[in-house]
Amino acid sequence: MIPGSIPDGWMLDGDAIVRRYVFSGFPAAWAFMSRVALLAERHDHHPDWRNSWNRVEIRLTTHDTGGVTARDLDLARAIDAIPATG
Amino acid sequence: MIPGSIPDGWMLDGDAIVRRYVFSGFPAAWAFMSRVALLAERHDHHPDWRNSWNRVEIRLTTHDTGGVTARDLDLARAIDAIPATG
Amino acid sequence: MIPGSIPDGWMLDGDAIVRRYVFSGFPAAWAFMSRVALLAERHDHHPDWRNSWNRVEIRLTTHDTGGVTARDLDLARAIDAIPATG
Amino acid sequence: MIPGSIPDGWMLDGDAIVRRYVFSGFPAAWAFMSRVALLAERHDHHPDWRNSWNRVEIRLTTHDTGGVTARDLDLARAIDAIPATG
Repeated sequence: MIPGSIPDGWMLDGDAIVRRYVFSGFPAAWAFMSRVALLAERHDHHPDWRNSWNRVEIRLTTHDTGGVTARDLDLARAIDAIPATG
Repeated sequence: MIPGSIPDGWMLDGDAIVRRYVFSGFPAAWAFMSRVALLAERHDHHPDWRNSWNRVEIRLTTHDTGGVTARDLDLARAIDAIPATG
Repeated sequence: MIPGSIPDGWMLDGDAIVRRYVFSGFPAAWAFMSRVALLAERHDHHPDWRNSWNRVEIRLTTHDTGGVTARDLDLARAIDAIPATG
Repeated sequence: MIPGSIPDGWMLDGDAIVRRYVFSGFPAAWAFMSRVALLAERHDHHPDWRNSWNRVEIRLTTHDTGGVTARDLDLARAIDAIPATG
């Protein structure tokens, strides 16, 4: 049971919500990740994520409860508010 | 004597070229700085720079020669190619 | 009037406390700055800082009040807790 | 056929070499990743990597050749030269 609707662009995958991003290259991917890292610290909630060159995949779940909670949805919305770059 | 024209947006200030940026806030400023850091490593040439919340000032000079060289102009142009983000 | 004692290594400079760091090179300086950036977001309080290759100078002041406050001392102590690297 | 010996701490896994790291928390993990990002740009060779809070896994392979090459071993050694932090 998800405590709210999953934001557009995110998919439910098991006990997590997932979104994938494609950038112009590593520098743009890394700049995006740098903003997500700041958000994670602000929210005190951190992604399970991977990067390969211009691709980033973010998985959000609340490990303590073993599922998607409002903390994941809040972080997802904050990530979605990052302006797109190359 | 500058080895080429100073790119638009940069000013000559003493023995350096300088550009100032204003972003929407610290996260956007930091994401920009993260891209500049990658460029600096690629170019093996590093800025003298400062940040205060949403503001970034970049000074480029070639310390070894005590003046602006092609290395500074190259890095300036690479920085200018970073897409603006807000 | 400073609301507490200035942590070792920091100096009072006008309306700010200041600390200077020297690292093995840019990569170590940048890794340190990356941790300070995370702390700044967590504390919602951001430094005025500059970097030149292996050198970092951090100035902390509370712009709203025009002087050093507990927010600056808290952030200074958090920065001091970052383990030294090369 | 690997063009040289795999550095200590790395394991061969399919067509890649892999190393896993555990840090004191996200900030230390992120600082490490920030240094790896700089190295990746310098080497013009980028990892497939993932992070979850205090854990980082780095996979190095040369996608163009579908296997481990000297570029992977060089980057692995450069990563190994990053001083350990918390």
